[in-house]
Amino acid sequence: MEYSKCWLDYRPLESVEEVWLTLIVSCDGLIIESAVKEYVLAMEGMAGRKPTVTADEAAAGVRLLVDESIVSGTDGYHIIGEDGGYKIIGQSPSGVLYGVFHFLRMAANGELSQLPVENVPAMPLRMMNHWDNMDGSIERGYSGESFFYKDYEILWDERLEHYTRMMASIGINGIVINNVNVHEKETYLITDTYLQKVKQYADLFQRYGIKLYTSVNFAAPMELAGFDNCDPLEPQVAEWWKETTAHVYEVIPEFGGYLVKADSEGRPGPFTYGRTHADGANMLARALAPHGGIVIWRCFVYNCGQDWRDKKTDRARAAYDNFIHLDGCFDENVVLQIKNGPMDFQVREPVSPLFGALKKTNMILEVQIAQEYTGQQIDLCYLPPMWREILDFDTYAEGKGSTVSNIVRGAAYGQKFCGMAAVINTGNDKNWTGTDLAAANTYGYGRLAMEPAMSCETIAKEWTDLTLGAKVEKDVVDMLMKSWPTYEKYTSPLGIGWMVTPHYHYGPDIDGYEYDRWGTYHRADCNGLGVDRTPSGTGYTNQYNEPWRTIYADVEQCPQELLLFFHYIRYDYTLKSGKTLIQHIYDTHFEGVEEVEAMIAVWKSLQNRIAGEVYGRVLERMELQLANAKEWRDRVNTYFYRKSGVKDEKGRTIYE
Amino acid sequence: MEYSKCWLDYRPLESVEEVWLTLIVSCDGLIIESAVKEYVLAMEGMAGRKPTVTADEAAAGVRLLVDESIVSGTDGYHIIGEDGGYKIIGQSPSGVLYGVFHFLRMAANGELSQLPVENVPAMPLRMMNHWDNMDGSIERGYSGESFFYKDYEILWDERLEHYTRMMASIGINGIVINNVNVHEKETYLITDTYLQKVKQYADLFQRYGIKLYTSVNFAAPMELAGFDNCDPLEPQVAEWWKETTAHVYEVIPEFGGYLVKADSEGRPGPFTYGRTHADGANMLARALAPHGGIVIWRCFVYNCGQDWRDKKTDRARAAYDNFIHLDGCFDENVVLQIKNGPMDFQVREPVSPLFGALKKTNMILEVQIAQEYTGQQIDLCYLPPMWREILDFDTYAEGKGSTVSNIVRGAAYGQKFCGMAAVINTGNDKNWTGTDLAAANTYGYGRLAMEPAMSCETIAKEWTDLTLGAKVEKDVVDMLMKSWPTYEKYTSPLGIGWMVTPHYHYGPDIDGYEYDRWGTYHRADCNGLGVDRTPSGTGYTNQYNEPWRTIYADVEQCPQELLLFFHYIRYDYTLKSGKTLIQHIYDTHFEGVEEVEAMIAVWKSLQNRIAGEVYGRVLERMELQLANAKEWRDRVNTYFYRKSGVKDEKGRTIYE
Repeated sequence: MEYSKCWLDYRPLESVEEVWLTLIVSCDGLIIESAVKEYVLAMEGMAGRKPTVTADEAAAGVRLLVDESIVSGTDGYHIIGEDGGYKIIGQSPSGVLYGVFHFLRMAANGELSQLPVENVPAMPLRMMNHWDNMDGSIERGYSGESFFYKDYEILWDERLEHYTRMMASIGINGIVINNVNVHEKETYLITDTYLQKVKQYADLFQRYGIKLYTSVNFAAPMELAGFDNCDPLEPQVAEWWKETTAHVYEVIPEFGGYLVKADSEGRPGPFTYGRTHADGANMLARALAPHGGIVIWRCFVYNCGQDWRDKKTDRARAAYDNFIHLDGCFDENVVLQIKNGPMDFQVREPVSPLFGALKKTNMILEVQIAQEYTGQQIDLCYLPPMWREILDFDTYAEGKGSTVSNIVRGAAYGQKFCGMAAVINTGNDKNWTGTDLAAANTYGYGRLAMEPAMSCETIAKEWTDLTLGAKVEKDVVDMLMKSWPTYEKYTSPLGIGWMVTPHYHYGPDIDGYEYDRWGTYHRADCNGLGVDRTPSGTGYTNQYNEPWRTIYADVEQCPQELLLFFHYIRYDYTLKSGKTLIQHIYDTHFEGVEEVEAMIAVWKSLQNRIAGEVYGRVLERMELQLANAKEWRDRVNTYFYRKSGVKDEKGRTIYE
Repeated sequence: MEYSKCWLDYRPLESVEEVWLTLIVSCDGLIIESAVKEYVLAMEGMAGRKPTVTADEAAAGVRLLVDESIVSGTDGYHIIGEDGGYKIIGQSPSGVLYGVFHFLRMAANGELSQLPVENVPAMPLRMMNHWDNMDGSIERGYSGESFFYKDYEILWDERLEHYTRMMASIGINGIVINNVNVHEKETYLITDTYLQKVKQYADLFQRYGIKLYTSVNFAAPMELAGFDNCDPLEPQVAEWWKETTAHVYEVIPEFGGYLVKADSEGRPGPFTYGRTHADGANMLARALAPHGGIVIWRCFVYNCGQDWRDKKTDRARAAYDNFIHLDGCFDENVVLQIKNGPMDFQVREPVSPLFGALKKTNMILEVQIAQEYTGQQIDLCYLPPMWREILDFDTYAEGKGSTVSNIVRGAAYGQKFCGMAAVINTGNDKNWTGTDLAAANTYGYGRLAMEPAMSCETIAKEWTDLTLGAKVEKDVVDMLMKSWPTYEKYTSPLGIGWMVTPHYHYGPDIDGYEYDRWGTYHRADCNGLGVDRTPSGTGYTNQYNEPWRTIYADVEQCPQELLLFFHYIRYDYTLKSGKTLIQHIYDTHFEGVEEVEAMIAVWKSLQNRIAGEVYGRVLERMELQLANAKEWRDRVNTYFYRKSGVKDEKGRTIYE
């Protein structure tokens, strides 16, 4: 299987320091072996020579060592220039590995003069969630088939190691290898049917400091062992999980734990038996605890059989309403995985109010690298700026400064198990991610989970330099940084979301979900649109702490980009920009298309500076993006013109 | 496979004439044998005794004879009471068979006092089109799987004979056994892979006076014989069809011919090679002609990649535009099969203008018994009244009196090959047709093709008496007769059509096709809706003869039920009823639901008079219909309330 190397390409450098070519290794173990292997490989590429690897402490060169006291936090590292050489000191073997990747990145990008660097991974859990199915498909996958599975077999080839190195290079320390929707065959992943193959993966991951997790089927005792129920308070059910889990750890002592989607979108769960999510999660947690494993429990629970006529039920309220009363009821090794927003990975949503509400519960922030609603890896949409806004959001849970970042780092309440998880965007496409540029999101996610204070521009620069080279850095970074606002402009306006083709979620269908059962409505009529989520509407704003509760409920204070998420607004309402709402809709949709056209012009100007097939592959996607942007522009504008009867002030073409 | 007997149930009668129990047969042949067999079976059921079958011409009884001179037209029959007995005289063996079915129907329904009866089948071709696929599925099938095929095998069981008898009993004389969309496996139906099994069907059909036809794949020479093209003017292609067809007739001398969907919705056709439909059809016709076969060529050709922004292209124009210039270019054994309306089997469409335009071409009128857009055999929608309107439509092709009925009977231009075809609504459900009442459509179609002047109420009575018994006749006939208007009320208004869930075509989705590529738009905005098909719009009205051309183009003269098909109308426009358009929309949608509720009440009142499982099966469907009607009512009303901002005058609930 041919594949590109992404940001681990290690292209030859113009200038190389001689000391790089001696590697002094003063520590050992499997992870250190991986670090050394990576270093050697990188130098072969960048310097064109194989470095000498020695244990001779007196040599001059790049030295790897572990010193638990050198930095303050788990898996941290310190890189210093000293005595004409360099030292990469890890708090642990993983710290050394991360330090090596950091050193290589700096070497490749000519940044070693900026040393020393000291760094501690910010998030304790830095997870990737694969939505790969064992038939080889990937739910919401936009870059080919799975490289984990095919026809219900677990694959094993060299691409897996490259994948694992990519994950380690951006600091990932946990990978969930199967879709949260666990179908029949995947239920067997924790049984002898597949465990030996899973162990192969776990061993590979372990050599790179990564734990393997599986998504499990809450109804597994029924499907695998003939139980007539899976009531979490039924002792025999709990016992079955204990035994099954013990066996998993017998085979894979470093196993991470379970991810569970329960009572959601048709998945089984504790609700069936009148039990709470805490009952369900704790039952699994107690099976995992003796082995040091954790259970990650998703909060994506809502009524997916809503009646569009019902204006009181609000899907946005669901996660909070379902989990707030369980705060403090979960065992220590349970982590709730909470999607960034209250809906579902839209291009713009407010931050989930659960982050500011749960105080005695471990939390993971879940984001989606896979661009389900953000262009499906055809359209360019660089997501780290969105994630940064989420991380920086101040929940005011404990007064000012209670940012999401602090909460999921464990800094707010001292949780041990917390962090970030992301639905990954990879597949077996040659370039891994659909458009090559979507790999910037994969990369950026890991970097932010390691260093949430990093500027997104810096991340974009790092990725661009490593992947495409410094020659195109300025243009590509500019392109990436503009892409999310552009995508937002030509799709659904001001936080209302949806308006996508049902099920596929690509391309516009303004009323596609409007009369459906999914709780995702825009309520557009001849006077205006938007959902009233204030206390006079669904009351969702009350799930926030002050001052947000007041700000969101007040149409004048509400952040403009979320206006239609929180309020029903008339087309003739004047926004802070001085434009009416309807004119804002028209303007942004024309602008969005113009910005895509401008982006394509920039990309075309790079033709001679982009190596190999990447230029053509990306251009092809960009042309599809332009067609998509035009379709969005025309459908949205026509839809609102037909509804409002208001003409564009600037007289541009809006089809009747 | 258990199945109901539908209208061939032959339940015991209260009174029986002794003479029925002697059958004197003065003719012979396979079809006569079938007639005798049917008569015996019927008497066993109705009289509880096996009749004597004799050739003794002196006996008193029911006498079957063939007399070519007795009636004026092909396969006609004459039934008379004479000398204390009855004579069933057929112009042909098929005439005898039809006469026997007619006699048995009259006997069952106590109508023999109305004799004599003389009848000649009106339409030369009375076709059923099966959209059965060889995998066992049925395209647009709503009553189970195919009883012809399963897993690419041709089935053979006793249900087939019952099916064949049902078809013969309503006068069907041609059956196309596979879907017009001919997939890979079905392409082999005309080859030795399947021909012996097809012959079994053909033999069975032949015993009931029915010819077997197959849908063929225009690209068959490429798929079956490795040709690199299927250009109809390529001699080798024509030669391949000649040889293949000759072989079909070697195996099945009574084979009817081919049905072809070409250059339509992705199907291959002559357009690919710059040839006309006449080139394509004639090439096949010349392969069939030596054997007496015909080619039936569908006119359902349109651009299914339309841009919703384009208001000039009009799918309604397509059939006429594609075929009008070919009038007179087709061979004698080519028949064009033309859908009743210019769109696609909507609940209300004008009649296709092709019927009034082609004068030197054989034509078949195609209708759809399968309720694709008319409730999918869940909702009750008795269709003969729609078909009667179509048959009675005066095209003015040759001045007044040029009805569609006269044209497709061959009365207008003396064509030999013409008639009606219908997409059948059967499947392997126990009751054949989804809701049991949908069999009235199957029955009614055949009766109308035989006797297009019959009143639809009489047809409904016949069917009800035979199927459910005279005790419920009045209520069931009333229910059937009201059902089409009711369905029309709660679905899309005034001829605009569509507004259905894309692809499935059940249930409402007002904008579902509005911005799609199918050419099916309603153009609703804040002021009104409808498509301008007058000369100031798409010009479609010009495809009609006068006076229709003028009538349809004039908003004041246009029949109200087609108003939105031909015109864009403002919500505040006053209809002939004195209501505004918007109020008409609201009123009809409330009325539609009320009428379904009333219908259910009537059905419930019949509980003790409906035998067996039928009552419950139908009630279950009616309850689904009510839910569907409510969903249509609420979505349509809300949609237009949101667009127009106009409140219901009567203050009923319209959701905001």
